[in-house]
Amino acid sequence: MTPPALRAEGPAPGPRRRPGGRTARNRARVIDAVLAELAEHGYDGLTMETVAARAGVHRATVYRRWGDVGGLLADVLDAAGDDAWQPPDTGSLEGDLAALNHEIQDALTAQPPVVAALIAASFRSGKAEHAQRRLWEDRYARCEIIVSRAVLRGELPAGIDARRLLITATAPIYHQLVLLRTPPDPDLPDQAARTAALAASAGAFRSDEGDLK
Amino acid sequence: MTPPALRAEGPAPGPRRRPGGRTARNRARVIDAVLAELAEHGYDGLTMETVAARAGVHRATVYRRWGDVGGLLADVLDAAGDDAWQPPDTGSLEGDLAALNHEIQDALTAQPPVVAALIAASFRSGKAEHAQRRLWEDRYARCEIIVSRAVLRGELPAGIDARRLLITATAPIYHQLVLLRTPPDPDLPDQAARTAALAASAGAFRSDEGDLK
Repeated sequence: MTPPALRAEGPAPGPRRRPGGRTARNRARVIDAVLAELAEHGYDGLTMETVAARAGVHRATVYRRWGDVGGLLADVLDAAGDDAWQPPDTGSLEGDLAALNHEIQDALTAQPPVVAALIAASFRSGKAEHAQRRLWEDRYARCEIIVSRAVLRGELPAGIDARRLLITATAPIYHQLVLLRTPPDPDLPDQAARTAALAASAGAFRSDEGDLK
Repeated sequence: MTPPALRAEGPAPGPRRRPGGRTARNRARVIDAVLAELAEHGYDGLTMETVAARAGVHRATVYRRWGDVGGLLADVLDAAGDDAWQPPDTGSLEGDLAALNHEIQDALTAQPPVVAALIAASFRSGKAEHAQRRLWEDRYARCEIIVSRAVLRGELPAGIDARRLLITATAPIYHQLVLLRTPPDPDLPDQAARTAALAASAGAFRSDEGDLK
């Protein structure tokens, strides 16, 4: 859902940390520089020049490979999805959803607000928008195992629309923090998880729901 | 939730339509011009100059009264909330929530995409962000009567947290269309309403939920 692999601590990694030659090293440095600039100055302060200078990569290389600021942000988001993240496995549907919601809330309220800044940037750049959509699609796809496990445990019947259940559980966190911009509610991650689990127990999210009317 | 009063049909209203003197007429013309420009060119095409020209209002007046593009957008959003909108009253909790969700989905997918453009603009301008928050807060407050009516009808027990129920019902629509940007799902408004109503029947949204753990 969120990009836990995002780092913005600043210093460029050495070649030992990220093997793969100069191209890979340059990418790592540029991504770190974008995150650091975004954390410090937000989207409006993000330029190809400051990123190139901070990364220690030649401007011409940055322009050639990433094109523009949207290209930089899209690559940051693509890199964030290129990890081994798996959703929490707590032993129960409600527990998994709550743990997931806490991860999302933590990411959306982290300081510096890198994740929030990337979401905001997706309203400014078509490339960033597409990359953000790809990242979310990948995260929600990975989370479907939460529902499969609940079915295997007998917590849920088969034929549940996993994506709708996951959206119901997680959407309130994004809605409150990204759109309504209300202060973080420490109870919301658990409550939203419990609501989705209760609705599932009461018969929601059945794939054949449309036929029941 | 959404600003049903938004109009973007273009021509400035005559004095008969909106009484109140030149100041009120100028405001109406400027708001119509902002909506029309936003619909045609989006945020990036919105300037004080084009709005003034389209509205037929002197540039100096526009600058003095609205300050900048953020001020224009904030006034559009404030004007949208200055209406007599009330949530649908269909006779059942699930029906009210479904009708509300259809209104939201219609507004978010309307052409021209004025509501979507205003939400996107709230990521660009602090003034627009605050006005968008005020508008949503007002809309959600008006919607609480949906829950009160359900309690009066005996559909829900007393002590339900109305706002959390409303957020659960409506958040998936915003999440899918504004953040995940998936194509509109014609079944989603009804399904999300049904999910919230099922969860409520199963014991979610109780104001004392935190004490139950």
